[in-house]
Amino acid sequence: MGELQEKGRLAKDAAYQLAVLTTEQKNKGLLAMADALEAAMDDVIAANALDMAQAKENGKPQSFLDRLLFTEARVQDMADGLRAVAELPDPVGHVEEMWLNKDNLQIGKVAVPLGVIGMIYEARPNVTADAAALCLKSGNAVMLRGSGDAIQSNLKIAAVLAKAAEEAGIPAGAIQLIEDTSRETVNEMLKLNEYLDVLIPRGGAGLIQNVVKNATVPVIETGVGNCHIYVDETADIEMAVNIILNGKVQRPGVCNATESLLVHKNIAAKVLPAAAEKLLEAGVELRGCEETMQYIKEGKPATEEDYATEFHSLILSVKVVETMDEAIMHIRRFGTKHSEVIVTNDYANSRKFQQMVDAACVYVNASSRFSDGFQFGFGAEIGISTQKLHARGPMGLKELTSYKYIINGSGQVRK
Amino acid sequence: MGELQEKGRLAKDAAYQLAVLTTEQKNKGLLAMADALEAAMDDVIAANALDMAQAKENGKPQSFLDRLLFTEARVQDMADGLRAVAELPDPVGHVEEMWLNKDNLQIGKVAVPLGVIGMIYEARPNVTADAAALCLKSGNAVMLRGSGDAIQSNLKIAAVLAKAAEEAGIPAGAIQLIEDTSRETVNEMLKLNEYLDVLIPRGGAGLIQNVVKNATVPVIETGVGNCHIYVDETADIEMAVNIILNGKVQRPGVCNATESLLVHKNIAAKVLPAAAEKLLEAGVELRGCEETMQYIKEGKPATEEDYATEFHSLILSVKVVETMDEAIMHIRRFGTKHSEVIVTNDYANSRKFQQMVDAACVYVNASSRFSDGFQFGFGAEIGISTQKLHARGPMGLKELTSYKYIINGSGQVRK
Repeated sequence: MGELQEKGRLAKDAAYQLAVLTTEQKNKGLLAMADALEAAMDDVIAANALDMAQAKENGKPQSFLDRLLFTEARVQDMADGLRAVAELPDPVGHVEEMWLNKDNLQIGKVAVPLGVIGMIYEARPNVTADAAALCLKSGNAVMLRGSGDAIQSNLKIAAVLAKAAEEAGIPAGAIQLIEDTSRETVNEMLKLNEYLDVLIPRGGAGLIQNVVKNATVPVIETGVGNCHIYVDETADIEMAVNIILNGKVQRPGVCNATESLLVHKNIAAKVLPAAAEKLLEAGVELRGCEETMQYIKEGKPATEEDYATEFHSLILSVKVVETMDEAIMHIRRFGTKHSEVIVTNDYANSRKFQQMVDAACVYVNASSRFSDGFQFGFGAEIGISTQKLHARGPMGLKELTSYKYIINGSGQVRK
Repeated sequence: MGELQEKGRLAKDAAYQLAVLTTEQKNKGLLAMADALEAAMDDVIAANALDMAQAKENGKPQSFLDRLLFTEARVQDMADGLRAVAELPDPVGHVEEMWLNKDNLQIGKVAVPLGVIGMIYEARPNVTADAAALCLKSGNAVMLRGSGDAIQSNLKIAAVLAKAAEEAGIPAGAIQLIEDTSRETVNEMLKLNEYLDVLIPRGGAGLIQNVVKNATVPVIETGVGNCHIYVDETADIEMAVNIILNGKVQRPGVCNATESLLVHKNIAAKVLPAAAEKLLEAGVELRGCEETMQYIKEGKPATEEDYATEFHSLILSVKVVETMDEAIMHIRRFGTKHSEVIVTNDYANSRKFQQMVDAACVYVNASSRFSDGFQFGFGAEIGISTQKLHARGPMGLKELTSYKYIINGSGQVRK
């Protein structure tokens, strides 16, 4: 039997047991995992050093190395993250509603774990601990498939966590790493319907599209964010500039960063020079339409391709629009249904924008950077869904549950 | 451009408009559709007669012909169904929760339509009207792909409904039937991610598995129900017999019918003969384990295959179990996570069964036949989900929605 089959069967068995653990039992596991990770600090960093050496040898860029690197502080962050998840409320068992039907059957809708979750992710080994914690707290078994580039780090972290969890009473198989990082094994995992209830890919567009296009296991699509700010005619200039600057430069490499700026023609002469001053100061390259160039002499011409691109860097596409409707149509065409912002002081336009724009998060007068489980108050997140099925936007513990109906009768039969 | 591309684009455009229609506008459309269907009664029945003639020529079995046939009463039922959906509460716009985050951002979770729904179904042309009504009321555009065996009926119904809807102000493209019923077109529809937000297959296991295995569009899997009744040691005999009989014979061809009976050994001598008497009287064939045969002399030996089979007919598999745990393990092995029943008067066992059995609907002391949107009080249903993602069990209007977050700020940026 292959690794996937063997681990899948173990995970499925574990999932049945995990589903009925008490909150206290799961928290005990999480705290033990945090302690074990701290105790294994040196080993984790040593394993990570092997990955780092390999990555450097392979000529990976600096941004890649930054994400891959473990320092003491980062391992401590992972351990703290495990403890923070222990503090969060347990979503399992919550009865969302309960009612009597016409036959006097009592019908309750109860939150239950999804079962076995497959995580497929790139070379960010902290995901190994984060995902393990969130899946355990929500009563799910997890099969982790990280990148080959982080395999030594992942093996060490997963081994430490799985051992600590098991010793603390969590069923064996609850947390498992797939050791075979070949492409064939991923492709097999995408079709592992017998054991997996859901797949959550996390990473770049290529990884996610491979999963979406080839998986037969249900997928929660995450991540791609071509987010816009539309500055309406009545916007407060200073507020607009702050929100643009924050959206673009506070952390440009993430999915909720702002990639494109749309400005109403009647306010362009005021907003664009003011925004450009700050953006250029922060090192942002501006790519605009013809009208944009009238207000920003440092700008470069934008192509259609620019409007469709999630830059993930200090580049912002800019367009002057005739009307809010034009902005909405532009977002419909180029947006990825992640996070969209209007800056306005017009009440009717604020409502219309929120209603007409189809995205997970639609903001009035706030930065797109708030699209995040921690910022929303969920305490943690496993990703940001850009699909409409099951979960949309930031996903916390609750989004890692399904539900079942429990029906209490006294002998009712159907007429 | 092919039919799917053309209709997909129309549907997507319509979906944006449908999402912001008022409840009144949608209800006006539904009532106009009901009136039009009544007015077209003769045409619908004439079109259906062509399908019936073809089906007879093709030697289809009687059960198939029964499902395909339209009578005046059945067309009237469809029209009444459209009016009933108009009466149901509109799920769109409901704010499930709204809160202030730490930065004083007001964050609301608002129900929105899924977008464009693809329905793939077999030769039950009433689904054409039912699905159109539920999708419209929930603000979704729908692309209907029925069976080639019902194409004349479907074409007529869809044309009548689409015309009436459009004349009542519903956007063109909201309700569309795929006219090309070739296998290639279905397979293309399964990958129509550009236009479809979700696929809902309805029909036999073969149809559903084809969709699940080949779709890249997110799927809600419906339908397959290998449902069990476990009769616990403390069960009331009469209640158990009633529930068994109702589960098996009240309507054997549907997914929430009972297919398998598990009986605790300490009550088998009482329950099995009493149940067998009624079941045999109703024409049910009983296939049991060795111990079952001791109590039911008319029984035939059951194979592993029998325990795995959703008979959809008057056949019941039977097994005597040593313990409730054995029953739970049997259900875990052979169940399809649809509807499972325990008959018991033991409080602890009732709770344990509901907690340990992983199914959409877990009953204590009631018939599995209640797993149905109408019986649950949803007023209608588009199907019964057997997956865990998005929706589980009977799906009403609410399950045809997603949500978005609307975030109201006053200039907040992320620190």
